[in-house]
Amino acid sequence: MSMELAESMLLERGVSVSAIADIVFQLQQKYHPDLTLAACENSVRAVLGKREVQYTLFTGIALDKLAESRLLPEPLQSIMDQDEPLYGVDETLALGVTSIYGMIGLTSFGYLDKEKIGVIHTLNEDRKSVHVFLDDLVAGIAAAASSRIAHNDPGAASYTSSTD
Amino acid sequence: MSMELAESMLLERGVSVSAIADIVFQLQQKYHPDLTLAACENSVRAVLGKREVQYTLFTGIALDKLAESRLLPEPLQSIMDQDEPLYGVDETLALGVTSIYGMIGLTSFGYLDKEKIGVIHTLNEDRKSVHVFLDDLVAGIAAAASSRIAHNDPGAASYTSSTD
Amino acid sequence: MSMELAESMLLERGVSVSAIADIVFQLQQKYHPDLTLAACENSVRAVLGKREVQYTLFTGIALDKLAESRLLPEPLQSIMDQDEPLYGVDETLALGVTSIYGMIGLTSFGYLDKEKIGVIHTLNEDRKSVHVFLDDLVAGIAAAASSRIAHNDPGAASYTSSTD
Amino acid sequence: MSMELAESMLLERGVSVSAIADIVFQLQQKYHPDLTLAACENSVRAVLGKREVQYTLFTGIALDKLAESRLLPEPLQSIMDQDEPLYGVDETLALGVTSIYGMIGLTSFGYLDKEKIGVIHTLNEDRKSVHVFLDDLVAGIAAAASSRIAHNDPGAASYTSSTD
Repeated sequence: MSMELAESMLLERGVSVSAIADIVFQLQQKYHPDLTLAACENSVRAVLGKREVQYTLFTGIALDKLAESRLLPEPLQSIMDQDEPLYGVDETLALGVTSIYGMIGLTSFGYLDKEKIGVIHTLNEDRKSVHVFLDDLVAGIAAAASSRIAHNDPGAASYTSSTD
Repeated sequence: MSMELAESMLLERGVSVSAIADIVFQLQQKYHPDLTLAACENSVRAVLGKREVQYTLFTGIALDKLAESRLLPEPLQSIMDQDEPLYGVDETLALGVTSIYGMIGLTSFGYLDKEKIGVIHTLNEDRKSVHVFLDDLVAGIAAAASSRIAHNDPGAASYTSSTD
Repeated sequence: MSMELAESMLLERGVSVSAIADIVFQLQQKYHPDLTLAACENSVRAVLGKREVQYTLFTGIALDKLAESRLLPEPLQSIMDQDEPLYGVDETLALGVTSIYGMIGLTSFGYLDKEKIGVIHTLNEDRKSVHVFLDDLVAGIAAAASSRIAHNDPGAASYTSSTD
Repeated sequence: MSMELAESMLLERGVSVSAIADIVFQLQQKYHPDLTLAACENSVRAVLGKREVQYTLFTGIALDKLAESRLLPEPLQSIMDQDEPLYGVDETLALGVTSIYGMIGLTSFGYLDKEKIGVIHTLNEDRKSVHVFLDDLVAGIAAAASSRIAHNDPGAASYTSSTD
């Protein structure tokens, strides 16, 4: 099954579902005091269950691995070697992931991509591997999983045409 | 409930769920020979059940109605009166709707927005009302409902790490 | 001219070009030690010179003002009164602004939208006015102006097919 | 220079600037009767001059070529071999290109991606090469170049706060 494949690919690259769930928990805890880590893991798995997320992960991780094996044509190989800050294809792919639960996730994505919380920091410090795409994709998955929790909260407001 | 509200708002503006389902059927029939109109209606209702779609509809329809009542501040009132072709906020809102089932929907959205099939054509010909936002949002909803059908097709390919 | 109009509309809502430039300066200073506030103001004005940015500003500010005048139809009026956290149309409009200089701006946008630096904080604390859209749009403009500075830096890498 | 590199890469994959300009001409001719092919070529070159467009092209073409050389890890290799219709990363990358001149380009992008006009059709019929990314990127570049022409038209409306 594709979701198990996505999970095992992430793990092989050093990212567990529970590590992503930790980030989600940090983002959402203050808004949802009863939130559990298990609920965050569920939400991450729901995101990983989406085919478009899986396909994006397959693509980004393939590019990271090909860069490690130095199999990318130039100038892409050099751009990835230097984690060129003006290269925005990683953010573009992450947008495709984050937007699946609506654009409210863009804020969390940008924040995580800047602050590099949890496993995103670990990926960023790892000098032996290339994670140009993976750090953004993990931020995008965590942002999407956070949006999903926000949308599913039974306490979330529901609006009708009447105002009372 | 918000979905019923979204449906009744659309109806009040001349767009029924079945009219959107007709567009979806035209888009998807050749790829899914067993597709029924009822399945298309289900898919449209699933899209309308998403909070972010409802909120976007509330916003776009409000702008259309305020333009009709001439309550918008200038220069927005003039821009909407002339359905200014360089105004892209309607496409931006539609992107937010379409992307909910992944970016594969962008193709259908653009095609519908250009070809103006079915009720999108009717909206476009209606000289008595302002539908600057609604025609794009209907195209976005139809595109998202089409993507949803494509993703849910039990015949859709599933990829694992083995190639056989 | 439309740019002057955009500037004066922002000012009327409490946001000066130099206040946005201050945010850009805070974001970019560490990457560009020679950066001046004047260069940041130039960059903000270049962003405001784009028609799609102006049109998005006209739309977002109109919605904020109509909410203040209580002229929006329900349930949109209630959603804006409560600055409903699941309402994502403001982020969607900001994406349209930010993406004009490429998706690298998404990170800055999300960070600013979360951390609420400078005038974004002021807008957020203002209890007398509605700034549901404006705070996101200012973050989007600042993010785009930052991307523009990064792209225009003469020290930015240029890649050719040769790697030396 | 990176733009020449982008141009020569496109040419090596069977796409000339003038072939993209032909598509732009077909899209824009009816709105701009004085439009020349030379102006369309200029506009395509302006799009190719943007770093984010170049970087996206380098990435998409690399993925196409690696698929041809069968160097992609599974399951990505199989997904690209079959030009899997539910794979949306190509549309996501194209969005990054198209949005550079605002979201009005989404309509043209979707239309071109569906109708496969000119060289997009040729790429699609080419059974000897893999063009999963290139056909979408060419559609995205043509859509962006069309938006640019529309924005630069001296006859385009300009709105001020006065309505006369």
